[in-house]
Amino acid sequence: MEINYLDKIRSPQDLKSLSGDKLNTLAEEIRSVLIETVSQNGGHLASNLGVVELTIAIHKVFDSPKDQIVFDVGHQAYTHKLLTGRYEKFSTVRTSGGLTGFTNPDESEHDIFFSGHSTTSISASLGLAQAKLLNGDDNYVVAVIGDGSFTGGMAYEALNNAGKTKSKLIVILNDNKMSISENVGAFASYLAVIRTDPRYFRLKQRTEKALNRIPVIGTRISTRLFNLKTALKNKIYNRSTFFEDIGFRYMGPIDGHNIKQLCQALEGAKIINGPVVLHVITTKGKGYDFAEKMPSEFHGIAKFDIETGEPLSAEKSFSSFFGEALCRIAENDDRICAVTAAMSLGTGLNGFADEFPERFFDVGIAEQHAVTFTSGLAKNGKIPVFAVYSTFLQRAYDQLIHDISLQRSHCIFAVDRAGFVGEDGVTHQGIFDVSFLNAVPNFRIYAPSSFSELENDLKDAVYENDGPVVIRYPRGNEAYIEDMPALKSEFYNIYGDIENAEKVIVTYGRISKNAVEAMKKSENTAVVKLNIIKPISSEAVEAIAGKKKIYFFEEGVRSGGVGENLALSLMENGCKGKFKLIAVDGEFVEQATVEEQLEKYGLDTESMIRIINEVE
Amino acid sequence: MEINYLDKIRSPQDLKSLSGDKLNTLAEEIRSVLIETVSQNGGHLASNLGVVELTIAIHKVFDSPKDQIVFDVGHQAYTHKLLTGRYEKFSTVRTSGGLTGFTNPDESEHDIFFSGHSTTSISASLGLAQAKLLNGDDNYVVAVIGDGSFTGGMAYEALNNAGKTKSKLIVILNDNKMSISENVGAFASYLAVIRTDPRYFRLKQRTEKALNRIPVIGTRISTRLFNLKTALKNKIYNRSTFFEDIGFRYMGPIDGHNIKQLCQALEGAKIINGPVVLHVITTKGKGYDFAEKMPSEFHGIAKFDIETGEPLSAEKSFSSFFGEALCRIAENDDRICAVTAAMSLGTGLNGFADEFPERFFDVGIAEQHAVTFTSGLAKNGKIPVFAVYSTFLQRAYDQLIHDISLQRSHCIFAVDRAGFVGEDGVTHQGIFDVSFLNAVPNFRIYAPSSFSELENDLKDAVYENDGPVVIRYPRGNEAYIEDMPALKSEFYNIYGDIENAEKVIVTYGRISKNAVEAMKKSENTAVVKLNIIKPISSEAVEAIAGKKKIYFFEEGVRSGGVGENLALSLMENGCKGKFKLIAVDGEFVEQATVEEQLEKYGLDTESMIRIINEVE
Repeated sequence: MEINYLDKIRSPQDLKSLSGDKLNTLAEEIRSVLIETVSQNGGHLASNLGVVELTIAIHKVFDSPKDQIVFDVGHQAYTHKLLTGRYEKFSTVRTSGGLTGFTNPDESEHDIFFSGHSTTSISASLGLAQAKLLNGDDNYVVAVIGDGSFTGGMAYEALNNAGKTKSKLIVILNDNKMSISENVGAFASYLAVIRTDPRYFRLKQRTEKALNRIPVIGTRISTRLFNLKTALKNKIYNRSTFFEDIGFRYMGPIDGHNIKQLCQALEGAKIINGPVVLHVITTKGKGYDFAEKMPSEFHGIAKFDIETGEPLSAEKSFSSFFGEALCRIAENDDRICAVTAAMSLGTGLNGFADEFPERFFDVGIAEQHAVTFTSGLAKNGKIPVFAVYSTFLQRAYDQLIHDISLQRSHCIFAVDRAGFVGEDGVTHQGIFDVSFLNAVPNFRIYAPSSFSELENDLKDAVYENDGPVVIRYPRGNEAYIEDMPALKSEFYNIYGDIENAEKVIVTYGRISKNAVEAMKKSENTAVVKLNIIKPISSEAVEAIAGKKKIYFFEEGVRSGGVGENLALSLMENGCKGKFKLIAVDGEFVEQATVEEQLEKYGLDTESMIRIINEVE
Repeated sequence: MEINYLDKIRSPQDLKSLSGDKLNTLAEEIRSVLIETVSQNGGHLASNLGVVELTIAIHKVFDSPKDQIVFDVGHQAYTHKLLTGRYEKFSTVRTSGGLTGFTNPDESEHDIFFSGHSTTSISASLGLAQAKLLNGDDNYVVAVIGDGSFTGGMAYEALNNAGKTKSKLIVILNDNKMSISENVGAFASYLAVIRTDPRYFRLKQRTEKALNRIPVIGTRISTRLFNLKTALKNKIYNRSTFFEDIGFRYMGPIDGHNIKQLCQALEGAKIINGPVVLHVITTKGKGYDFAEKMPSEFHGIAKFDIETGEPLSAEKSFSSFFGEALCRIAENDDRICAVTAAMSLGTGLNGFADEFPERFFDVGIAEQHAVTFTSGLAKNGKIPVFAVYSTFLQRAYDQLIHDISLQRSHCIFAVDRAGFVGEDGVTHQGIFDVSFLNAVPNFRIYAPSSFSELENDLKDAVYENDGPVVIRYPRGNEAYIEDMPALKSEFYNIYGDIENAEKVIVTYGRISKNAVEAMKKSENTAVVKLNIIKPISSEAVEAIAGKKKIYFFEEGVRSGGVGENLALSLMENGCKGKFKLIAVDGEFVEQATVEEQLEKYGLDTESMIRIINEVE
C-alpha cells in the first residue's frame, strides 16, 4: 500500500501529533511493510503483526528513551524499530550488516538490551527501575512480555521481587493465547479464566459507564481516585488476580487492537504508584489471514509468497528427519517419550505429538523444568528425548549437571540448531553447547553430519547407552558425503590415506563435508571425522598423534571445545606435531547466512584449503 | 537422651505400629540425635529440626519406596535418613566415606534423587508421577519443598505443568517463613496472608467441627465427599488461592509439629484425584533454642558447643573479608549495589545489608533473575556486585551469556566457594565455573589467593574495568604466601628463578601456596601464579613456553579450564615442552575435608612434589 505516514516518523516524538484515524492508517501501513519485508527476508511475522497497535500506543503515551521500553525476546520489536528511526533501513533486517531481528542497543538508543531469549524482560526492567529509584529519576520502565514467556520461571522470580517495590515498572502482558506453539499449562488456563470470567464481563456491562465517569486520564488526576476505581472494581469482581496476590496492580483485560483504549489504559497505568500489570489481549498474526490461521507456522518463517502464504523453498531438515526417526523408534518401544519447551514445530516433534499424544510433553518455555522432568521420567523406566535448540539448552545448565549427570539418568538430548544458525544472529548461534557439556561428567555426545548418521546415533543413544546422551545436529539440510568409507568404529571415520598423509584435518558435524572436499583438493592430507565427540576415541587420537601438521576445524567456541580437548591430549602424549585450531574465539557470531558465517570463521571449503596450504 | 524407639526402626514399615505419644517420643529422640550429631560433624540443623514431625507423618502415611518421596535441596532429609535404616551410620554424616548430607540414591532405595540445589523437586516429582501414570502404577509421589525454594522460578514452571495433569502428585509446602536468610519477595507476603487471613481463621472457629463430621480419612470414603468439603471451604473463604488458580487442590494451613493433624491431612491429600498442595507451617530450628532464635546462623553450621550454641572455631573467611572490603568501597561510591540470592550471611553481605539497605537486594533463591537484574542496574549507572557460590552460578548460565556478556554490562560477580568446598559433597563443589565462563566472551576473571589480593582485585574490578568481571575465591581462610615477590603485572606473579628453571609449575588461587612450597622443596623449579586467569597474560605464556617441563595444577575441571586453555596456546605457539595438567577429570568430587580432597586430586604440597619429581 501507499506509505503516507510511516515514512515521516523519524522518532517516537513524531507520533505525538497523530491521533484517531491517522494512527489506524499508520497501523495499516506498518502491517503492509511487515508482511512485505518478512516475505522477502524471512523473520518473525505473527508476533509482530499482533503488537502493531500496542507498540504505537506505547510510543504515543511514553517518552522513549527517557522512559525505557524492554521487549521480551525482542522478536516482536519490528514495529518499534519502524517507529524509532529505522524505517528506511528496514528492508535490510536479518541480513549481513543490516538491522537485526531483535532489539539491539548498537542500533538505537531506544533499544535498551540485546535480546533473543525468552522471559528476561521483567528482571532487566526491574533492575532499570530500581536504578532509576536510586538515581531519583521518575521516568517509567515498560516491559512488554507475551503470555508464552510467562511459562518461564524467571518471569515469576522477577514478579516476586518487583511486587513489593515502589518501582515505576509497568509490565504489559501481551496475551495472544500462544507462545510459539499453542500455549500450555495451568497459567494459560488461568488467563483464559480472567479473560472469560463472567464476573469480569458483568463489570463491563453494569458498571463501565459509571466507573468511567471517574476520570483516570491526565496527569492532574489524583492517584487516590484511580485507587478508588480499582478498589471498586475489585469489590465487584470479588476476587483478586494472581498478580494482585503477589503485589502488583492488575489492569485489564484490554483490547490490544484498539489504539484509543490502549492509550487510555497506559495513561491509567502511569498514574499508579508502584508496579502494574496491564493485561492486553492481542491476536497473533493480526491482519494477515494465513498468519492468523497458522500462527505457529508464521512465528519464525523463511521467505514466502504473500498471495499463497507458502514458503518459497521447502528444504528437508535435520529437525523433520529427527522427528520421523524418533517416531519409527517409538512405534516399537513405548518407553520413548518426547519433551519440548514450546518448540514442537521447530524441533520436528509435531508428528510425534499427533501419533503418541500421551507420551508427548510440551512444557512451555521452561527448559529448566524440562530437563529435570526428563530425569524423573527416566527414573521410573521411560526413555525421554528432550529436543531443544542448542542456544536454549544453555538455560538449563545446572539441571544438566545436578539432575542428569549426577544421577547418570538415561535421558537423550536432541540438540537442534547446533553450530551456526544464520540470520537470527548473536543470541541464537549454537556455539556453546559442546564446550559447556564437555565439562560435565557422564555425557556422551554424538555429532552426526547426515540423516543416516542421525538415525544410527539415535538408535545408539536409546539402545547402546544407559546414561545421559546428547545428539547435536545443525539447522537445515544434511551435508551428505559421497563415497563415505566405513566407520572405523561408531566413534569416527577416516577419509584418505592417513598412513602416508603429512597433514590431517580433524573435525565433526556438517563441516566434515567441507573438510573432505578440501582434502580432495590438497596433497598429502587425510581427514578424521569424529562422530562421537565426547569421549574422543583414543584410537583416533593415536591416528592423529603421529602427523606433522594437525588442523582442527570447529563450528563452535574454542575454549573447552573438542579441538582444545584434543590438543591437550596430544600434548600430554608427547605429540610434537604442529597444531592449529580454527574455531570461534571470544566473540559472538553476527547475523548473516550460514554460508557467510562459515566463510567468516574459516570453516568453508575454500578457507580450509587456504589454511592447510598456507606457507609457514 | 536415652534412645528407645529410634534404634528399632530399620525401615519406614517399623513406624506403622507406633502411634500417639510414642511418635512424639520418637520425635524427641530424633531431635536429640540431630543436635548431637550436627554439633560434632557440622551440617544443616535448623531445617532438619523443623521437619521432624512432618517426616515421621509422611513415612507413617505413605509407603516408601513404592510411594516416592522427593526432598527439595535434600538438606532437610536427616530425619528421613534416620527412619530409613541409616540410624546406625548417622554419626558418619558428611565425613569421607560416610553418609552424605543430602539425599543420595547410592545410599538407600528411599532416596530417589541426588540433591543439593534448590527448587528441582516438583519437576523431578512430576516426571516420576507422569511415568507412573504411563506405567499404570497408582502409587504417590510426594515432593517436600520449603517456601524458600518457592522463590525459584523452576517451582512455578513445574506447578504450571502439573496443574492440569491427573498425576498423583502431592506437593508439601513446608512453610517456615524462611529460606536460608529470612524470606523475601511478594510470594512470602502472600503466604503470610494465607496464614493470617481472617477469612481462614473464621473458618476454623465457625465451621471446623461441622466440616470434620464429614469423614475424610480412610480409603473407602468417596472423593466426592472430600471434594464437597473443599468446595464448602472455598465457599466460606470466598476466594481461591494462587495454587487453585493454577490447577492444584490446596489444603492447609496445617500445624507442622502436630503428628496427628499431619497424618490426617496427608490421608486427606491421598484421596484427591490429581495434584495437591498441602501447606504445612513449621518452625525452623524447632526444639533447640539457639536454632529457633537464629535460624540463619543454624541453617548450615560448623561444629558447635551444644550448651552455648557457639561455633567451636571462628576462622576468618574470604566471605567475611569480601563483605568488609565491599563496604569500604561502597562508603565512598554510591553506585555500588550488592545482590544476593538468599545468601547474605553465607556470602558475607550481612554488613553491607545493614549499612546500605537501599542498595542491597536479596532476590530469593533466584539466580537467573539476580544476574539479569544486575544488568538492568548497570545499564542505568549502578555498579552491581552479585555475590554467589560458584555451584549456584551454574543456575544462571544463559543469563551470563545473554544478559551480561552480550550487553558487555559492567557487573561484578563475586564467586564464593570456588574450588573444593569439603563436606557438602558432590552437588556443591565449585569446580565448573572457570570452565563455563572461559567459553563466554567479554568476561575477565580474577582468582585471588589472599585477602589483600582480593581487595586489590575488587578495586580493579570496579575502577579498571568497564565490562563483566568475575572474582573467584575459595571457602574459608586465605592461603597467604610469605615473601611474595612483586606482581609482574596485575596478571601474574613469578616465584623462583624462572630464567634458569627447567621446570615450571603454573597455577592459581589458593593452591598457589602449595605450589610455592613444593617449589622450595624441589630443584630447578619456578612457579607462575596467575591472578587474572582470563585472559591469560601473553607475557606469562612466553615465560612458560621455553621450559622443558610444565606442570599445571588446577582446582577445577580439566575440560575448558585454564590449564587446557594454556596447553592449546602453547601448542599453537610451537612449544615443545612436556605438559602435564593435574585437574578434576570427568567425575564429581565426593565429600571429605578440603585437605582430603586436595590430596585425592594431587593438589596438596606433597602430591605436587611427587608429581614434579616423578621419573619418566
